[in-house]
Amino acid sequence: MNKEDIGITISKKEDFSEWYTQVVLKAKLADYAPVKGLIVLRPDGYSIWESLRNTFDKKFSKNGVRNGFLPVLIPESLLGKEQKHFAGFNPEVFWVTHSGENEVGDRLALRPTSETLAYTLYSKWIQSWRDLPLKINFWNTALRAEIKATKPFLRTSEFLWQEGHTVHTTKEEAEEEVLKILDIYKKTVEEELAIPVTTGKKSEKEKFVGAAYTTTMESIMPDGKALQMGTSHFLGQNFSKPFEVKFADKDNIEHFAWQTSWGISWRLIGAMIMTHGDDQGLVLPPKVAPIQVVIVPIYKNEESKNKVMTKSQEILDKLELQNIRTHVDDRDELSPGYKFNDWELKGIPIRIEIGPKDIEKQTIVVATRYNREKTNLGFDEITKIPDILEKIQHNMLEAAKIQAEKNTKEITDYSEFKSNIEKGGFFKSPWCGKIECEEKIKEETSADIRVIPFDSEDSSRKCIYCQEQSISMPIFARGY
Amino acid sequence: MNKEDIGITISKKEDFSEWYTQVVLKAKLADYAPVKGLIVLRPDGYSIWESLRNTFDKKFSKNGVRNGFLPVLIPESLLGKEQKHFAGFNPEVFWVTHSGENEVGDRLALRPTSETLAYTLYSKWIQSWRDLPLKINFWNTALRAEIKATKPFLRTSEFLWQEGHTVHTTKEEAEEEVLKILDIYKKTVEEELAIPVTTGKKSEKEKFVGAAYTTTMESIMPDGKALQMGTSHFLGQNFSKPFEVKFADKDNIEHFAWQTSWGISWRLIGAMIMTHGDDQGLVLPPKVAPIQVVIVPIYKNEESKNKVMTKSQEILDKLELQNIRTHVDDRDELSPGYKFNDWELKGIPIRIEIGPKDIEKQTIVVATRYNREKTNLGFDEITKIPDILEKIQHNMLEAAKIQAEKNTKEITDYSEFKSNIEKGGFFKSPWCGKIECEEKIKEETSADIRVIPFDSEDSSRKCIYCQEQSISMPIFARGY
Repeated sequence: MNKEDIGITISKKEDFSEWYTQVVLKAKLADYAPVKGLIVLRPDGYSIWESLRNTFDKKFSKNGVRNGFLPVLIPESLLGKEQKHFAGFNPEVFWVTHSGENEVGDRLALRPTSETLAYTLYSKWIQSWRDLPLKINFWNTALRAEIKATKPFLRTSEFLWQEGHTVHTTKEEAEEEVLKILDIYKKTVEEELAIPVTTGKKSEKEKFVGAAYTTTMESIMPDGKALQMGTSHFLGQNFSKPFEVKFADKDNIEHFAWQTSWGISWRLIGAMIMTHGDDQGLVLPPKVAPIQVVIVPIYKNEESKNKVMTKSQEILDKLELQNIRTHVDDRDELSPGYKFNDWELKGIPIRIEIGPKDIEKQTIVVATRYNREKTNLGFDEITKIPDILEKIQHNMLEAAKIQAEKNTKEITDYSEFKSNIEKGGFFKSPWCGKIECEEKIKEETSADIRVIPFDSEDSSRKCIYCQEQSISMPIFARGY
Repeated sequence: MNKEDIGITISKKEDFSEWYTQVVLKAKLADYAPVKGLIVLRPDGYSIWESLRNTFDKKFSKNGVRNGFLPVLIPESLLGKEQKHFAGFNPEVFWVTHSGENEVGDRLALRPTSETLAYTLYSKWIQSWRDLPLKINFWNTALRAEIKATKPFLRTSEFLWQEGHTVHTTKEEAEEEVLKILDIYKKTVEEELAIPVTTGKKSEKEKFVGAAYTTTMESIMPDGKALQMGTSHFLGQNFSKPFEVKFADKDNIEHFAWQTSWGISWRLIGAMIMTHGDDQGLVLPPKVAPIQVVIVPIYKNEESKNKVMTKSQEILDKLELQNIRTHVDDRDELSPGYKFNDWELKGIPIRIEIGPKDIEKQTIVVATRYNREKTNLGFDEITKIPDILEKIQHNMLEAAKIQAEKNTKEITDYSEFKSNIEKGGFFKSPWCGKIECEEKIKEETSADIRVIPFDSEDSSRKCIYCQEQSISMPIFARGY
């Protein structure tokens, strides 16, 4: 295998899509499965998901959410119980028709999402106000047959996600929950993955079918396309009525309950790759990196090898004591240069280089992946590594914010909108609130309303399309 | 709802099967899904699974195993590549034939197990000895359409499990791995779930189709039936040849690799329920209990309520500082008696009762679930609770061992074998090693060879069936 085959052979600017696919495959995050549109996660990819899951689990749990398990098979009759909801998924459903040689009676859908299944059970489990709020989350996969071109993490026919489903006695409490979850989502994505997000509502056209309204967080990717990073839905009583999710209140009168559902998926990993990666490959935010510090020992003969390896082990021990995930690359048959490239491709936040001369000077070389800078650190300064990792995490978010701001423009003139749309970006533009204008803009520019930010009400402008009075300044963009 | 509906209405002795189902449903561990043979896990059930998963993950990781993700859909052509293996699952496979309105070309199987999918990928990922050993584990579900009567946790058409798949350069290393994993399984089940297991090999007839041999751990349940608790397979080169899992060795010559696969499932939760539960309901080993200590405050008026609640909170804080999962049952509208029954049904290891008189005496009542005993503890002795929990864990395993020993008999006479088989139990009996005898015994008594214990080689006896020279003393039993 020559070096070309191992490293990334195309620049991020030149061909973003090809660059992305190369990073995913060559950094060994994921690979294609034999069925078109499906991927597998290799350990380095899955460990990022595990890290996110652990963080979310802690935050969900603090908010009183517990985890459960739902099977993947949903009878067709059940899926169709909320008509609008069903229609939204109909073309994407995988259908099981046989078990062994036998035809199954009612066809079985592979879960595109579990509202209908969960609420059938909730209606049994909930009798009175004492059983509420009920907050259960499910870590599983959803299956939606993709017709469009698929892309690892971004568009696949099966994807890892979590789906939370909560039930409340009052509308107010349910709506509060929707926002609490959205806030957990936003903070986690910003703090763990170093990706800034914009939160707000989806338009009626773009909301989750079956929801009263959908709140969302959206990010702008470096190629100018928008990515939906997670959604939190207020379901109102849209499901509690057909599924009879009812409770007897303190006055012993039965009411339909108020519900929410919400989810994030492994798309977040795709967003992380796109936001931070560079021409050398992946760049991992320290908080989710499976290895945070890799030590590459440099030596020419057995004598220097022994010294260097002993020191490397010593540094590893010190760092592990500080809970830093550290690895010594002791592969004997590979050159330091090969190793540097390898760990850069894999995006490990810090590389420590140590050779006989460094030992003499009692220093190490610290190479930080995100900015590709090298500095020297004395042996007695190794305790500073955790601070450096924190600084990296912070700086990566700041850089991503600047990047996102550059890609965000306020545009009030439709011809400017049209001439700029090819370049991509978030366009903040005044809108009258009518679906007709939204549809026309989509038709003519392929741009959607991605999010109506929470603070974007504005009646002082004119709709960018029809020139009537605006109600808000949504963010328009072409999306993934 | 009357009390009868809430508590367990049948004794474990009287109708074990009905008792089991009541415990599962009434302790709110699981419920039936709308599709026959499928169940859902409620938070109290799922948290036991999470606890086991965390423990296994730590041990797997120490052994160099990392986690990954595989999709649930496997093309029919791939599944059939190892013929014997495929034949074993054929009647149980759920088939996807359509996505949306469109027929899929090659039918898609819902994963009954992932050997064929994993090894297709492994053959791409492995080039040289440097890539080995490769050890990846997958936490997912397997789907096998059950024709027999289903039972929560014990026999369901979709079940939570983990499947580990490792690849090695040598036969010896692979065989060592098989035993390392079996040892992790055994220790975890004994230490966490307090269930003793017997380890050994499966007979040729009972091994995993496609394996060179299967090692297993088996337990005897209180009703005298055997339960397979987990298996670790040596696959030899049975899969590496058809799937071309090859590596170039240091000498640059290509070899077929040596492989293992291994799994445990949520069956372990079923075993825990059966082994420890009693007529009052579930009995949870402290290590896997979602709540380890529940505090029930007892009061008659507002004044005593305040005092008792303050003290309860104080005890909770102290226990949480010691990392004990503690809960105060502050439900106002329910009587202490109701609460006692409720927490007994749910199997919480320790219940602390505290009322105004206890406060005067500076004591609490500690009720231990597994033996239903009550003792008094001074306020200054609350630090002893962690020790008590450990003692409970220990005693539960000891009690289960005694129970298992009672259910294990050495039987060398076939007529005694036949007359005892109805009562159930593990029968250690001499066997000649021939499949014909094994099949005849199965035919005439419904008893299988569950496990040939590692230390059971014995050529000094006569086969219980044909009277020829024995080779070992396997354990025969009727199984789940």
